Amino acid sequence: MFSDPERLSGRRQPQVEIRHAADLVVQLSTSLQRKPDVVDFGTVFTDHMLSVEWNANGGWQTPLIRPFGDLSLHPACSALHYAVELFEGLKVYRGDDKRLRLFRPLLNMERMSKSAKRACLPAFDQSELLGCIKRLIEIDQDWVPHLGSGCLYIRPTFIGTEPSLGVKKPNRALLYVIMCQAGSYFNTELSLWADPKYTRAWKGGTGDCKMGGNYGGTLFAQQEAGSYDCQQVLWLYGEDHQITEGGTMNIFLHWINEDGDEELATPPLDGIILPGVTRQSILDLARKWDEFKVSERYLTMGQLCSALKQQRLKEMFGSGTACRICRIGSIVYEEKVQNSQNSSSWDKSLSSNLLRINFALFQHGRSPSDWTYLV
Amino acid sequence: MFSDPERLSGRRQPQVEIRHAADLVVQLSTSLQRKPDVVDFGTVFTDHMLSVEWNANGGWQTPLIRPFGDLSLHPACSALHYAVELFEGLKVYRGDDKRLRLFRPLLNMERMSKSAKRACLPAFDQSELLGCIKRLIEIDQDWVPHLGSGCLYIRPTFIGTEPSLGVKKPNRALLYVIMCQAGSYFNTELSLWADPKYTRAWKGGTGDCKMGGNYGGTLFAQQEAGSYDCQQVLWLYGEDHQITEGGTMNIFLHWINEDGDEELATPPLDGIILPGVTRQSILDLARKWDEFKVSERYLTMGQLCSALKQQRLKEMFGSGTACRICRIGSIVYEEKVQNSQNSSSWDKSLSSNLLRINFALFQHGRSPSDWTYLV
Repeated sequence: MFSDPERLSGRRQPQVEIRHAADLVVQLSTSLQRKPDVVDFGTVFTDHMLSVEWNANGGWQTPLIRPFGDLSLHPACSALHYAVELFEGLKVYRGDDKRLRLFRPLLNMERMSKSAKRACLPAFDQSELLGCIKRLIEIDQDWVPHLGSGCLYIRPTFIGTEPSLGVKKPNRALLYVIMCQAGSYFNTELSLWADPKYTRAWKGGTGDCKMGGNYGGTLFAQQEAGSYDCQQVLWLYGEDHQITEGGTMNIFLHWINEDGDEELATPPLDGIILPGVTRQSILDLARKWDEFKVSERYLTMGQLCSALKQQRLKEMFGSGTACRICRIGSIVYEEKVQNSQNSSSWDKSLSSNLLRINFALFQHGRSPSDWTYLV
Repeated sequence: MFSDPERLSGRRQPQVEIRHAADLVVQLSTSLQRKPDVVDFGTVFTDHMLSVEWNANGGWQTPLIRPFGDLSLHPACSALHYAVELFEGLKVYRGDDKRLRLFRPLLNMERMSKSAKRACLPAFDQSELLGCIKRLIEIDQDWVPHLGSGCLYIRPTFIGTEPSLGVKKPNRALLYVIMCQAGSYFNTELSLWADPKYTRAWKGGTGDCKMGGNYGGTLFAQQEAGSYDCQQVLWLYGEDHQITEGGTMNIFLHWINEDGDEELATPPLDGIILPGVTRQSILDLARKWDEFKVSERYLTMGQLCSALKQQRLKEMFGSGTACRICRIGSIVYEEKVQNSQNSSSWDKSLSSNLLRINFALFQHGRSPSDWTYLV
């Protein structure tokens, strides 16, 4: 399937032909599932999955679409011991014209390549992988909801499958793609718990890649957030309590900043922030609107609390492919609830709504956009 | 098998009886493998494995010893996406008296419990798990080498198996134990590469637990270490370049410290250091010897470089169950090689040898010790 830059550069002799999406083998399921109407995010999967194996000697093997089912993994598999693993998340939408569209999928492919490099998993050809995903969507296209703004969530996953216990670059890997009903991720305005005692990511780590290890360590803090009646953690960083991410979302403030300027601001990509596709799209769209300042800048809890006190915060929201754009209603910080009671202007602006509406126009093909990719 | 504290406290009704090691079901393999003589660490596994499933409704299920073989896992399994996973490492030794001994296994069980809590995996009864491991060792006892100082490496592994994609505490989990030939981990004095641009662990993270996510992110730096002809990374922390760990080892300096005192020193357990069983045993033994100062204290690269320059470093070594005690011969730091050429006293002291000899006396039953646990 995928070309392997190391092999192409002549450093290693190719042992099999480079495989292309066109070589893909399809084994159709003989018993298709019922498609439930409403489900929680990520609990019901479609009938088929894509998988492609890689090994250091033979390179990428032929991509296979097969009935959805369990993986058979060696118990020493490097993903299970050392979290040599990464994933992506994207969605496919059904348009008013019945056609299926992906939203900026090349950004996902690009980010996946960067994660693979960071995880010491092999390089792959991004457009070949996207071609294989397109075939998988075509086969399970009936799973993309026909009514409303429903969509199907696509989860490319890439794991090391080295069957030995030395901590080293794996000689075997498996790239697979599963798809599930997206459901609703959060139904209401979110409440966040901000406490510096847990850190999501740090300089010199992997916080800017979508690697599994960034997530497992967050469950404990999320549980503690629950004990404060909050749904998610607002991750802080450093002694000045910089705002970084919220749960698994990028964070935006729409406010009148310290200099009196109206600004939409989100933390910069300095190595500890995941470069979200929705984050990038919000920045791109807001810059195109040119109605207020749009900044990638450091934001601290002190600045946020001052803005709340001085009624300068118009709106705060999180963004991500799974959760889309989700307003933040309150934050528990230093044992106090920081919310709209502190700021009468909290609810007045609706930039999150405008962004949501615009994205939906593109995603469902109601407004032409070069951000969508027809399946 | 394992009691579940949450269920015992009455917060959840038990739906099945609590299982004990005595209930363990054994399915013996009908085709035993040949046992190769010399192998790399962690590449050849014994004939059987232990597995115990858990789910939120039914609690712990009956422990099973079965022929070693692949795991069947749902492709959305939370260990594969979010690194909800942890492991332990311990060894079983054959004594001169032919009896098999584990080395301080209760410390491993205790650390595994702490990792499970941090990973939001369920609590288990430590002595019941140890009882099951003992049964597994008995069944595969012929795999423990009969000659020399060979031993068998035991890898308890605990993974979330929740089959859905929400980032949350898993409702299903699998605890399994595999065993492999230990081989030799490092054969020579180690060379380390110290560069502050990568960080292994940080305050508020999971560096003090044996969770998979601590390892996958290190491969990239390890690869860069290789480009400097170094075998492992010496992990630094903070602006003063504190020495934390080396590769997957705890680090010790035996030196004449800044105050002119002979000292064996290792970084303190401040949240970013793995509480190694070998580390603890070195501290315990050296304190018992009472021949020099034994300290858990911060150590910086500046202090180490000064000691080398002033010929105050007697020895530097790493410790871990897999690598045992391994001398460090040189460090590449700030583009310079820091090694014995800078310090004529580098090779004079052999505290690492004395420690190694003492541990072997206990492990192989040549000297009585309450640190060993008869199988």
